[in-house]
Amino acid sequence: MIDVCLPGTGGMIPLPNRWLTCCWIEYQGAAVLIDCGEGTQIALKKAELKPSRLELLLITHFHADHTAGLPGLLLTLANSARTKPLTIAGPPGLRRIVSALTIIAPRLPFPLDIIELDKLAPQIPDKAGLTVTALPLRHGMTCFGYRVELFRKPIFNPEKAAALNIPVRLYKILHAGEAVTFEENGETVLVSPKQVLDGERKPISVCYFTDTLPFNLMSDFASGVDLLISEGMYYDEAMREKIEEKNHMLFSDSAHLAAKCGAKQLWLTHYSPALERPQDGIRTAKRIFPNTTAAHDGIMITLDS
Amino acid sequence: MIDVCLPGTGGMIPLPNRWLTCCWIEYQGAAVLIDCGEGTQIALKKAELKPSRLELLLITHFHADHTAGLPGLLLTLANSARTKPLTIAGPPGLRRIVSALTIIAPRLPFPLDIIELDKLAPQIPDKAGLTVTALPLRHGMTCFGYRVELFRKPIFNPEKAAALNIPVRLYKILHAGEAVTFEENGETVLVSPKQVLDGERKPISVCYFTDTLPFNLMSDFASGVDLLISEGMYYDEAMREKIEEKNHMLFSDSAHLAAKCGAKQLWLTHYSPALERPQDGIRTAKRIFPNTTAAHDGIMITLDS
Repeated sequence: MIDVCLPGTGGMIPLPNRWLTCCWIEYQGAAVLIDCGEGTQIALKKAELKPSRLELLLITHFHADHTAGLPGLLLTLANSARTKPLTIAGPPGLRRIVSALTIIAPRLPFPLDIIELDKLAPQIPDKAGLTVTALPLRHGMTCFGYRVELFRKPIFNPEKAAALNIPVRLYKILHAGEAVTFEENGETVLVSPKQVLDGERKPISVCYFTDTLPFNLMSDFASGVDLLISEGMYYDEAMREKIEEKNHMLFSDSAHLAAKCGAKQLWLTHYSPALERPQDGIRTAKRIFPNTTAAHDGIMITLDS
Repeated sequence: MIDVCLPGTGGMIPLPNRWLTCCWIEYQGAAVLIDCGEGTQIALKKAELKPSRLELLLITHFHADHTAGLPGLLLTLANSARTKPLTIAGPPGLRRIVSALTIIAPRLPFPLDIIELDKLAPQIPDKAGLTVTALPLRHGMTCFGYRVELFRKPIFNPEKAAALNIPVRLYKILHAGEAVTFEENGETVLVSPKQVLDGERKPISVCYFTDTLPFNLMSDFASGVDLLISEGMYYDEAMREKIEEKNHMLFSDSAHLAAKCGAKQLWLTHYSPALERPQDGIRTAKRIFPNTTAAHDGIMITLDS
């Protein structure tokens, strides 16, 4: 079970009534944050999320609306007496960006572990109990989409275990995937995990795409996700030319993507500041992919499929 | 006549209901902004101030709550197609700070004119029709207080001019401070400005002090200001030790300063995030200096003394 929240849903410029797009994914009290524009620490506070839980910050790309909140967030973590390390992962050049922005946040009381992702084979270590993979997007500068997944152990079936007379003290070991032996009627019995587990469970998955032009590989990368979070700068097809020039997507692009990748649901985000009422564009998107939501600041869901 | 606004009144950390302290001073459609923490561009928008009018940005010091909003503000100016230069003045090292923070705001379409102020003799060119002087404060790092003044021409007295039979076409020249001559009854008459002007007018003045320990020179620097804007991190005298350690002022420090310098009025600002209701501390401050206001975000005044 993971909690997903978009504390902000805006693009380009933070507005008094719309924070910049970022995504908070929390599992058992530890969290991953994707992107950190100006005001993100305020948006987190407003959404009642706890920055102290942050273990991994993922940066999609270096435009200011995705990065300018970094020094403020780090200082707020410092003020909360954090000492545990924070991992920050993002495009090549991340170290230089973080180093420059922290000129106003020197001497942090916790270490930063900075990971510059390889465009061809981006590797991110598991954090907060979650597995993250990255896909290079098409935004005129290096930009990554992220897929965050919770892999879960298969469900343990106590009835199967009881039928095999397995001592209860061995259940935990079997559930963890290890074989066990025990004595029964003077004989050694070997039990493998498969005998007591109910098959594989699908991971819980979230995919986050912004900012990018749409392209084919995205639907493979997002295949079967529980929640696709994807940008919709505008809904009006008349904006097509402008949006392509700036390497962004319309509502319909994300809806087509959600349909193609078999997502369970789609949240639209990263609205243009000029798009005052994203809700007005939801009908067209729903015609393409019915389970679409025009996300608003603070939207939150618990995924437990 | 100048308009003064505090779009934000917080210190240290921006909050969902309190922007970071900054000060907007506007005269005839051109403006000076003091400080630019995270979210200042949003606070300006909320206060319905127009960033396009900005001519001079003054930075008091380099702590993030006074500087982190710089790249976002510059990009918003860039998005509004600004081409006219922006002057930024602040402590020595400003060039390095601006250069680092603008790593995420490269290729601005307008030039930045950066002025690093000399601690012993800070010099700031007149901008927006206003004159700015600076005073080094005591904050454990270089930090400047600023006095912003509108110097005004003396009032022209048309009755005195008429009594001297001065042709109306010469009034403007005299008002601008130049002597004139004209022919009367075949003789050349010389008139000096003093003969038609009604003495000197006091400048309209605003003084801004944050962050600092109080010290004597501050009251000389702020002598007779129309509006003193000065920090009050807390009002509780029990916070004295903590506040001195961090080089800040209490409500009472600013109130004593206002009384000593002969300010017309005092606005308190730069509240600690822990100070939820600054209004609760106003009584004590008013006992020291009656015309004290615990400023709130967006407070605005037109000064025309």
